[in-house]
Amino acid sequence: MEAYAHGRHRDAIAAHGLEIRTLPVDSGGASVSELGDADAALLTPAHQFPFGSTLAPERRSLAVEWALDRDRLLIEDDYDGEFRYDRRPVGAMQALAPERVVYAGTASKTLVPGLRLGWLVLPANLVEEVVTVKARSDWHTSSLEQLTLAEFIASGDYDRHVRRSRLAYRRRRDRLAAALGEDVRIAGTAAGLHALLELRAGRSEANVIARAAERGLALEGLGAYRTGAHRHGPALVVGYATPPEHAFTAALARLKAALAD
Amino acid sequence: MEAYAHGRHRDAIAAHGLEIRTLPVDSGGASVSELGDADAALLTPAHQFPFGSTLAPERRSLAVEWALDRDRLLIEDDYDGEFRYDRRPVGAMQALAPERVVYAGTASKTLVPGLRLGWLVLPANLVEEVVTVKARSDWHTSSLEQLTLAEFIASGDYDRHVRRSRLAYRRRRDRLAAALGEDVRIAGTAAGLHALLELRAGRSEANVIARAAERGLALEGLGAYRTGAHRHGPALVVGYATPPEHAFTAALARLKAALAD
Repeated sequence: MEAYAHGRHRDAIAAHGLEIRTLPVDSGGASVSELGDADAALLTPAHQFPFGSTLAPERRSLAVEWALDRDRLLIEDDYDGEFRYDRRPVGAMQALAPERVVYAGTASKTLVPGLRLGWLVLPANLVEEVVTVKARSDWHTSSLEQLTLAEFIASGDYDRHVRRSRLAYRRRRDRLAAALGEDVRIAGTAAGLHALLELRAGRSEANVIARAAERGLALEGLGAYRTGAHRHGPALVVGYATPPEHAFTAALARLKAALAD
Repeated sequence: MEAYAHGRHRDAIAAHGLEIRTLPVDSGGASVSELGDADAALLTPAHQFPFGSTLAPERRSLAVEWALDRDRLLIEDDYDGEFRYDRRPVGAMQALAPERVVYAGTASKTLVPGLRLGWLVLPANLVEEVVTVKARSDWHTSSLEQLTLAEFIASGDYDRHVRRSRLAYRRRRDRLAAALGEDVRIAGTAAGLHALLELRAGRSEANVIARAAERGLALEGLGAYRTGAHRHGPALVVGYATPPEHAFTAALARLKAALAD
């Protein structure tokens, strides 16, 4: 898995007794040349979480080749790929090797995480086993909500909602970037609902987070997402989708003040 | 677990590598005197599934003593205890030994199985571990549906719905009993949404099921729920909650015809 990643993924993998190896991440996504003899890889190619970078085209090819040549499984977590702002959407890696890539999508970002609705596109030989494991866990996900989402998608309203949201979130991203001072570098904003604010070397994530908390702003540090030995400089992971519209200007001012302290 | 039981329970237990031992069931519920040195027991005390009997008072006491004396865990699956028709509701065993009994309830029978909403009352020392395992499986159940159910309960509408449904289902149960011929004994109808129709010895469950299917009626045989060596005579497990009201009279006639063949 990627050296910076969702803590729940790390916990789930570890809980199943698997050994975790990590790939360094940078502005080109994960260093997939280091996949080596791993049995499987979990990547966030469209928008690395929490780094925000997109997996570079040559790395995409390399990862797919790795999975095909070595007969390994690649898990493509596309948690916010619907929100790409500055260029055309990146195609799913799954399409390049449908029998070696598991594609995972979710309504958590496009609609709301409380729904707990997501989907997998699976290699054919995994479908039965995954269905069995899912059934053993909770039989199935709520029929009412699945049917409601299906109708929302079929009617075209889901796509309209995503397009409208994409505009609104891009505007927020631009306002966030414009609000920041000179000594903070913003990264990872080509897509998604969070940005990486890189702090000057030597500045403490914990300090900025504490100052933000005093102002009623909940921030997270990049360090909280670290798995393994690779270390990046201090940075904040800032989700900009959460504040209601009327509170967004004030939230930006508080963030700026916390960073300036 | 009980010798006749829900197949999904058996599968889930086996999938976790646990050895399954079975307790015979009869009109007094499970023979809990045979619990012996098991590590844990899964029972359906209020309404044995699929047998339909209620755990006899002396067996309830015995099972609770077993759990307390031997420091064992008892899982009380109360899947349809809201629907008790002929006498006062049976209290939960959980109340007799809150630190040794896990109580499981569900909205599947009172509302709809597609909701996938249920609840556990847990011994205090298990709460954290169960929350962790649940979170690892799916983080949490849909917030929207949980909040909606909470409001439904708090408003009193859930209780009103259960009372109204109880009357409607009791009427259906009575109509089912009245419709059956002499050579079929109906059992397990003090509670719940299904009845056990005991066939004359020598009659084949499969034959009656096939005849019912020809008439558009989906029945299940008791044999499909058997785990372990204990064998009961041929019987049908008939859920009477499913047909819409306008189709119930016709469904009864088809059942009677299938039984008469």
